[in-house]
Amino acid sequence: MNTDIRMKGFIKRHDIDEVLEIIENRIKPLDIEKISFEQALQRVAAENIIAEENVPSFNRAAMDGYAVRAEDTFGASFSNPLNFELIGELTAGRQPVKPISKQKAIRIMTGAELPVGADAVVMVEDAEESVNEVKIFNAVTPGKNVSRIGEDIKIGDIVIQKGTVLRPQHIGVLASLQVSRIKVYKQPRIAVIVTGEEIISPGEKKAKGQIIDSNSYILTNMIKEHHAIAVVKGHVPDDKGKITKLVKSCTEDIIILTGGTSVGKKDLVPIIISELGEVVVHGIAMRPASPTGFGFVQSRPVFFLVGNPAGAMIAFDSFVVPTIKKMMGLSQTLLGHYRKQKFILSRKVASQIGRTDFVRVKKTEKGVLPIRVSGANILTSMTRADGILIVPKNKEGFNANEWVEVNLF
Amino acid sequence: MNTDIRMKGFIKRHDIDEVLEIIENRIKPLDIEKISFEQALQRVAAENIIAEENVPSFNRAAMDGYAVRAEDTFGASFSNPLNFELIGELTAGRQPVKPISKQKAIRIMTGAELPVGADAVVMVEDAEESVNEVKIFNAVTPGKNVSRIGEDIKIGDIVIQKGTVLRPQHIGVLASLQVSRIKVYKQPRIAVIVTGEEIISPGEKKAKGQIIDSNSYILTNMIKEHHAIAVVKGHVPDDKGKITKLVKSCTEDIIILTGGTSVGKKDLVPIIISELGEVVVHGIAMRPASPTGFGFVQSRPVFFLVGNPAGAMIAFDSFVVPTIKKMMGLSQTLLGHYRKQKFILSRKVASQIGRTDFVRVKKTEKGVLPIRVSGANILTSMTRADGILIVPKNKEGFNANEWVEVNLF
Repeated sequence: MNTDIRMKGFIKRHDIDEVLEIIENRIKPLDIEKISFEQALQRVAAENIIAEENVPSFNRAAMDGYAVRAEDTFGASFSNPLNFELIGELTAGRQPVKPISKQKAIRIMTGAELPVGADAVVMVEDAEESVNEVKIFNAVTPGKNVSRIGEDIKIGDIVIQKGTVLRPQHIGVLASLQVSRIKVYKQPRIAVIVTGEEIISPGEKKAKGQIIDSNSYILTNMIKEHHAIAVVKGHVPDDKGKITKLVKSCTEDIIILTGGTSVGKKDLVPIIISELGEVVVHGIAMRPASPTGFGFVQSRPVFFLVGNPAGAMIAFDSFVVPTIKKMMGLSQTLLGHYRKQKFILSRKVASQIGRTDFVRVKKTEKGVLPIRVSGANILTSMTRADGILIVPKNKEGFNANEWVEVNLF
Repeated sequence: MNTDIRMKGFIKRHDIDEVLEIIENRIKPLDIEKISFEQALQRVAAENIIAEENVPSFNRAAMDGYAVRAEDTFGASFSNPLNFELIGELTAGRQPVKPISKQKAIRIMTGAELPVGADAVVMVEDAEESVNEVKIFNAVTPGKNVSRIGEDIKIGDIVIQKGTVLRPQHIGVLASLQVSRIKVYKQPRIAVIVTGEEIISPGEKKAKGQIIDSNSYILTNMIKEHHAIAVVKGHVPDDKGKITKLVKSCTEDIIILTGGTSVGKKDLVPIIISELGEVVVHGIAMRPASPTGFGFVQSRPVFFLVGNPAGAMIAFDSFVVPTIKKMMGLSQTLLGHYRKQKFILSRKVASQIGRTDFVRVKKTEKGVLPIRVSGANILTSMTRADGILIVPKNKEGFNANEWVEVNLF
């Protein structure tokens, strides 16, 4: 790729699938770091966690009731209660001292350790207590109402597999096993550069012909939602020297540029990336965001997204999200991070064979309605929509009243 | 409700629906605060945002090409190109000076303001430039390749409705309109109190009969995932005075206690809450987590969850999440925050009419398989599972090979 592409058009359009395959093959998981289990929410485990102890580490009562030898209760019923000598009480956290022998019982609370000799707990509801005695109305089998040693976790169990996204329950398992630190994949740091002569920041006074930068804020927040780290580099004019310098100065794991990605005279970004490194993809068979590109500078993936915010968002979802996931040790399908739900499509959607369309749709009482957008430029198409309907490249569209699967925001 | 419930059983079991209705009726949205748009991700708008300007605020080129009067191109084709005088160039951010008159054109870049007189842009691909002249090969209609004033946002448009969860695209709209601060509902602050004689912290040395506190960590992280604020109060023994004092000292919007919620002698929590305020619900027709309760202390909702982590998680999802949502100005259905997906159930699931079951299921190649749990006590049932299958109270279960809707983690 060289400067001859200027004002001419894309060399070759890639399919979305091809781009995802390139990402899958060329992006590698980041380094591993060890962090406190308390900080590990939504991080991805980079090691198997193997239990070094049993949970619970002792047999304990699973109900409030009476600890007994199960065999002593055999034959008990409401018409034929059996009498047990009540020899004490056990509450959680206290260690049992007296053992249980034939026809003896100890009052026991949920979570308390079972005394030696006992192998079952009779529920409170099946017993009637009087002084030093308890009547049992129901037979229990050995193990009844007992949480056995290792019932939840056994020594040697793999409790967390490498590659697991750590959710609250995993944090709980780490706490239970007193695993204070866990190896996880580093979070990608992502540089965000917005290009364009006409771009100013929200705080600045706007002259006619100028546009407020919304892409920095949109992309930063999308990056946050995917548990990566955004590093905003600000906006630069369409100046080859300045953009080049800024890209070269980036030390982040991913670089995103918006604007200047097309094939017009001012669309410097692909030219700069091809000079600094390699442009792998430029031009993708999709709508919106077809001028999206992807390359590498010093083995760092660089995405050049279109300047219009809706197109930038869809390209981010389609390509940057899988890159983030891959770096964090996960795999990802196209828009795999969206909740899917089926709806009836209220109006026909037309597309072209060979191109993947991302149609913004709105929920109505009857189903979903495609939002008409006259240009890809329409950020509010993303705020008015409730989700995205993908028209795959091998389809000419969907008919009205067809059931379609929507990716819900 | 009084202390007579001790060792006897619940007064009345509530249905899940009844509990959700109570939450819907008795929980009110929190106060409103005004925050920076940059901090607003996942917060809920407490006002309508009405556009005070048009976006874009000028007609601009939507493509790189040539700004012309559309009518001058009528009749142009590849076999009959029309000649235009090229009178200048316009890039984004620069204000046009020369107007366009009959048969004149200005080279224009995407995003640049359209010059006076021009009403369309001819794409680069449909033109051929030479010195001071450009040949046009394709006629355009007025408005072609132009983003018109207000195309994205018109003055007076409600761009964000009150009650909207603010996503990256909304943050982008706020940036575009230079709305630097937005009114949102406050985030609930949630006190987490873990009760139990036997509970110690992960760092502490464990004696036999003791259990590591995992609930604080699990609940804190669940609270984080729902964009509320966790305030961990630590763990207290089963001591009426200590628990009472701690509950009375809480100034948070919601109080959660775990453990001590059943009807055993040591299950002080419902007694304490009924003395400090009101117990509205104690005992819910659900499995697991049936001893869950809910009440108010000084108009603060108080949830008492079971001590076992899996039960606590399911009760949190079922009742605390809707409370958080309501406080943040949203409505919520049972497990409405989960992604739903249909799977074939590999094995029969039995339940009882009148009780809602939360069955943890694991994805397999063939569908989903219910995880067998011998006790609700099993935290790893939540880490081994990929989601939760709800058996509604009016069903006796599901058959093997039935299609079921799973709430995916």
